[in-house]
Amino acid sequence: MPEFLELLPPPQARQILLQHIKHKPQGEFLATHTALGRITAAPIHAPHPLPSFPRSTVDGFAVRARDTFGCSDTLPAYLNLIGEVPMGSEARLELHTGQCALIHTGGMLPPGSDAVVMLEHTQQAADVEIEVLRAVAVGENVLRAGEDVQQGQEIIPVGVPLRPEEIGGLMALGILEVHVVRRPRVGIISSGDEVVPPEATIQPGQVRDINSYSLSALVEQAGGVAQRYGIIPDRLEAIQETASRALSECDMVVITAGSSASTRDLTSEAINRLGTPGVLVHGVNVRPGRPTILAVCQGKAVIGLPGNPVSALVIARLFVVPALHCLLGMQTNRPAPFVPARLSINLPSQAGREDWIPVKLSKVAGQYVAEPIFSKSNLIFSLARADGLIAISADATGLSAGEMVEVYLL
Amino acid sequence: MPEFLELLPPPQARQILLQHIKHKPQGEFLATHTALGRITAAPIHAPHPLPSFPRSTVDGFAVRARDTFGCSDTLPAYLNLIGEVPMGSEARLELHTGQCALIHTGGMLPPGSDAVVMLEHTQQAADVEIEVLRAVAVGENVLRAGEDVQQGQEIIPVGVPLRPEEIGGLMALGILEVHVVRRPRVGIISSGDEVVPPEATIQPGQVRDINSYSLSALVEQAGGVAQRYGIIPDRLEAIQETASRALSECDMVVITAGSSASTRDLTSEAINRLGTPGVLVHGVNVRPGRPTILAVCQGKAVIGLPGNPVSALVIARLFVVPALHCLLGMQTNRPAPFVPARLSINLPSQAGREDWIPVKLSKVAGQYVAEPIFSKSNLIFSLARADGLIAISADATGLSAGEMVEVYLL
Repeated sequence: MPEFLELLPPPQARQILLQHIKHKPQGEFLATHTALGRITAAPIHAPHPLPSFPRSTVDGFAVRARDTFGCSDTLPAYLNLIGEVPMGSEARLELHTGQCALIHTGGMLPPGSDAVVMLEHTQQAADVEIEVLRAVAVGENVLRAGEDVQQGQEIIPVGVPLRPEEIGGLMALGILEVHVVRRPRVGIISSGDEVVPPEATIQPGQVRDINSYSLSALVEQAGGVAQRYGIIPDRLEAIQETASRALSECDMVVITAGSSASTRDLTSEAINRLGTPGVLVHGVNVRPGRPTILAVCQGKAVIGLPGNPVSALVIARLFVVPALHCLLGMQTNRPAPFVPARLSINLPSQAGREDWIPVKLSKVAGQYVAEPIFSKSNLIFSLARADGLIAISADATGLSAGEMVEVYLL
Repeated sequence: MPEFLELLPPPQARQILLQHIKHKPQGEFLATHTALGRITAAPIHAPHPLPSFPRSTVDGFAVRARDTFGCSDTLPAYLNLIGEVPMGSEARLELHTGQCALIHTGGMLPPGSDAVVMLEHTQQAADVEIEVLRAVAVGENVLRAGEDVQQGQEIIPVGVPLRPEEIGGLMALGILEVHVVRRPRVGIISSGDEVVPPEATIQPGQVRDINSYSLSALVEQAGGVAQRYGIIPDRLEAIQETASRALSECDMVVITAGSSASTRDLTSEAINRLGTPGVLVHGVNVRPGRPTILAVCQGKAVIGLPGNPVSALVIARLFVVPALHCLLGMQTNRPAPFVPARLSINLPSQAGREDWIPVKLSKVAGQYVAEPIFSKSNLIFSLARADGLIAISADATGLSAGEMVEVYLL
């Protein structure tokens, strides 16, 4: 089958696409508390140390550690209680030898103290006298100033998504505004003479537009902004005109071709007219989605997806989402999570071709079992019924029943 | 250690909390294309079959299957080509014995035909004569009407999140509006005399409010709407008054206590005054986060988190997120994805206690290694530096270096 050998499998095809993307969206400044999930456009540094003062990590007594050395249950150290450290302000007292002060978790260590004895390791001997039953070392139960981050330290690198953890950390440092990458705008074009808008009453021979909406949702999920350009008839000029407008208004363009081979060639030709280098990959060794078109025109990614809505969604996860991550400048060292499961049946596959198969998960004896969902292509609910996808890599000739597989949740 | 034995580990504590929640948010109707990630409030049924007419899955010729029986490369069947099926409308032709019609992928099968021969298995013999080189069975290369879904069939159950796949499927059926659960409103209250707003210039002894913002972000991420009630001083009446207002305005309330033991008792008492049954669990056998308070007042969940921002975020993932999913009516049979990794070092743990440890992932020889991040509690950037969390379950006394662990990504 020489035609299969000529087509690249998805990883190599993806690399070619990403290498050619030159256009990158600008950054923008956002209020930190509204920036969940956004990607940093520049590294962020600490304006001051954190904590900004030495803090107690327990409820207890601030002491000079040397005053407790050698003490024990049977030989307590007796310290003079000189006051209480108020929460939220500086202690108005200073510790001298033989003295201690009541302190709460998070309180600021008073001058002269260098450790905290936990409440549990003390006894009140008299009104102003405390028995210390266990020795503490210098710095024990204390957060040093700058122990979390030091002034000027890089706290968040460029190209990472802001999670609740980062948002909290930024607030701790009083960083109320962050420089993030603008959400890339993705133009989405459906084509096909048989395709009508979802609000239409369908006539015999017509189908409603699925791709514009499923792909918009995927784009939003992946951090982009979807802009729909509607359904274009299967004519070269019409496709080219709309694609050209989308390319000028967006950071990336996705075109779902009509279903037949001739309309796919139309898409390819329309894309080639948008600018150089044009179509880089026409056909990928993958199932579903072999007639995929990967192009870069005027520095921007232009991706031609199969019209079949199942192929379109699978292929969009393989190429549109990584292209979006590239535009977002995402550092991709964080792995994709999955659910390990036991495959329920044998799955043959052609060597050289990467296969993606929707599966349903069920729990049997505490372990997940992945049951492939077989259906003719083009049945959108075969995907809606699936929990995830499994891949058979190009160098395998299949998977065996009982084998462990990685299920990527949809 | 009798005090530890009295405390429940997180799974049991969570069960008690969820059992007592009576209040559920109402549903609302949304435009389908804006409902990504929303949870269905009712099952959805198909208003008509899909596909709504028999369609070709290939480019080729619509035929009567029996006209091709027995044919082969050396003994082709000769069929009379009577026309082409247009895309997007009904075929204006009817097939009789010995006839065929050109059809494209997705085209509607003309009356009289019952199968499609792929273009590759035919040859043009004359202008209106086609040689068929391979026999097809009835239904071959055809999607039957209703093959994806039948009229009236339940296509999406109640309590599931709408993914791009479901949105596409709904559009295919012309379902432009969906009934989803309103996003639960979560009131978030910070307390602590030492806590100041993030925009404040901090004075010695003061720290900025982390929890209001990190928890808001987590709530939004989990499908809720966060409503912040600011920072309340460590006084019973002040906390109770704000919590009471939050309880009446929201579907759930989260209070982060001040750092010290005494302010945590304050939180518990304030919660108990909000209504019955009040505090259900005071203290959970987990690290970090032992001083967690789980309550239900007036049917609504009220959760008291430790003031320590690291504990607050870890515990919020264990209790606030599941409570949110409960309010959303989510069916939780879809597993949580994770990344399997090899643990870099031994991790001891106390039997009976569940431990959650932040880890950093790195790839060594094609496999992920999880390196625990140790730090004193309360260092928010120890979480921001982490890729995920691993758990040591209550019935284990630790994990060994080299053991495989499940890393839940943050």
